[in-house]
Amino acid sequence: MKLLDIYARMKSDLNKIEKQLELSVTTDHALLSEASLHLLKAGGKRIRPVIVLLAGKFGQYDLDVLQKVAVPLELIHMATLVHDDVIDDADTRRGQLTVKSKWDNRIAMYTGDYIYAKALTIVTELNNPALHQVLSKAIVEMCIGEMEQIRDFFNTEQTVRNYLLRIRRKTALLIAISCRLGAIAAGTDDRTSNRLYRFGYNVGMAFQIRDDLLDLLGTAKQIGKPPGSDIRQGNITLPVLLALREPAIRTPLLGEIARIREAGGQTDCSAAIELIRGSRGIGEAERMSARYIDKAVSALEELPDIPAKKSMKDIAAFVGERNY
Amino acid sequence: MKLLDIYARMKSDLNKIEKQLELSVTTDHALLSEASLHLLKAGGKRIRPVIVLLAGKFGQYDLDVLQKVAVPLELIHMATLVHDDVIDDADTRRGQLTVKSKWDNRIAMYTGDYIYAKALTIVTELNNPALHQVLSKAIVEMCIGEMEQIRDFFNTEQTVRNYLLRIRRKTALLIAISCRLGAIAAGTDDRTSNRLYRFGYNVGMAFQIRDDLLDLLGTAKQIGKPPGSDIRQGNITLPVLLALREPAIRTPLLGEIARIREAGGQTDCSAAIELIRGSRGIGEAERMSARYIDKAVSALEELPDIPAKKSMKDIAAFVGERNY
Repeated sequence: MKLLDIYARMKSDLNKIEKQLELSVTTDHALLSEASLHLLKAGGKRIRPVIVLLAGKFGQYDLDVLQKVAVPLELIHMATLVHDDVIDDADTRRGQLTVKSKWDNRIAMYTGDYIYAKALTIVTELNNPALHQVLSKAIVEMCIGEMEQIRDFFNTEQTVRNYLLRIRRKTALLIAISCRLGAIAAGTDDRTSNRLYRFGYNVGMAFQIRDDLLDLLGTAKQIGKPPGSDIRQGNITLPVLLALREPAIRTPLLGEIARIREAGGQTDCSAAIELIRGSRGIGEAERMSARYIDKAVSALEELPDIPAKKSMKDIAAFVGERNY
Repeated sequence: MKLLDIYARMKSDLNKIEKQLELSVTTDHALLSEASLHLLKAGGKRIRPVIVLLAGKFGQYDLDVLQKVAVPLELIHMATLVHDDVIDDADTRRGQLTVKSKWDNRIAMYTGDYIYAKALTIVTELNNPALHQVLSKAIVEMCIGEMEQIRDFFNTEQTVRNYLLRIRRKTALLIAISCRLGAIAAGTDDRTSNRLYRFGYNVGMAFQIRDDLLDLLGTAKQIGKPPGSDIRQGNITLPVLLALREPAIRTPLLGEIARIREAGGQTDCSAAIELIRGSRGIGEAERMSARYIDKAVSALEELPDIPAKKSMKDIAAFVGERNY
């Protein structure tokens, strides 16, 4: 597994970041520390810190500086997860109890608020207003993305463009600015920073499309939650929109979605899932994801051939083939 | 009314800030704009912007700079209100429907997140990392304060010190940093900034104590919600803690609080309120509030005798006597 190789090569730096992540959410408020650490220990691939460090290799790599960008980005990702769990009413994530189910919605909301704010304080330790600005603007966009997702719940008339704009805000943006902030923190020139940003943006788009595919194709074990949770809560993803374009599938699928909506998600979704799995939507969504991966790789073309570039290509390839 | 005079004198500057507040939450996302504007239009005394502007008078007063501090501070205050309403399950605030009751909890949570983030983007338009740092650290503390409030719900054994620490984080801090950020943005020296901070901190403490008193003493019309909502949700405030020290009141009051807790707040709280009203807790809390007001006024002593100083004293006096 090439991805494991990347992690192995960066191990000591990633360990340091892991330690800083823990320190950053350790407060003298027991419940808050416990809830935040619970979330942290639940793991995750730390893809944003990895990307920050790799982007930093294209400039002056200084771990003490880069970690003050890497840690906030992972924290912001975590904060969005806690708030998503409040909204989604999710009891487990990655096979672990969520903060909202282990404690309650109130704790989850303030834990999320706290982690967001903590992330911003860390980045302000670097005396570079550009970093603060990129980060806070991205959070604004991400919030708008979350609102759009709610607005578009069960909206079967939305366009593919709508979906793409939404996942741009929801997912791609944070990965893109992981590249940008790593680049800025390492003092690269603007062209390098922009190319890295484009890499991150396209990888992020592919990542979310594959995530949405996995929710339809994966097993509960692979994805850490029951499949079909998107359609159950009304989140109409790319394969669904594409399946709806198929005349033979459209009518029965619309019927199933209406039935799920009426039941408030508390019903068997397997008929809908089977319809989508049997449609051309799956293959088309896979191809769209692959095109984003291609764009990500070509964004790297003009960059110097350092080992970090190879690692970024490996990450792109991994995202493109990701099955868990 | 002296307070109205202060507003009248600052009218054109406050109007400009009001306009900027509106602009700041106007997005091309209809629902988000609507929810934020609903909140903004519900009004409020804009005490934080007023304080920023007054603090700015002790340095180089530049409205274009100061508004980029005043607007974020009011936005952060608003964001905490939206999130509080989710937690408190409040249907009205200041006599208006809350975001969570007009829309739902999900919209309220993301509207709050959005307003927080938006506040931070505005302050990053000023190229002064000290501002970002003070602001994001304050949000961290405020989140901890909110968590402490939840932790301490129905805890009748908590100390007065505990209560004071909690309202420091929950209320006083944001008013204190309104002074500090106004001072920093106007380039005052550190001593001036520290004195203004102390003024804000003490006014904020007095403000919250009076707010907690009003919840017990006011009428529904005066406070814009039914009295006793604190004790109903388990928020044990200063007058209650002081009343519990009175042997003749302690036992029946503990009994009432236990009964309210068991009923999940869905019960008549008038017996508890009567017990507290009849205790020495009211008078003692009023005296503590008055002492904070005295401290606020003496923090101003060494500052130059400009009109803003007089206005700040008037604000302190108003908070000390506030009955709505």
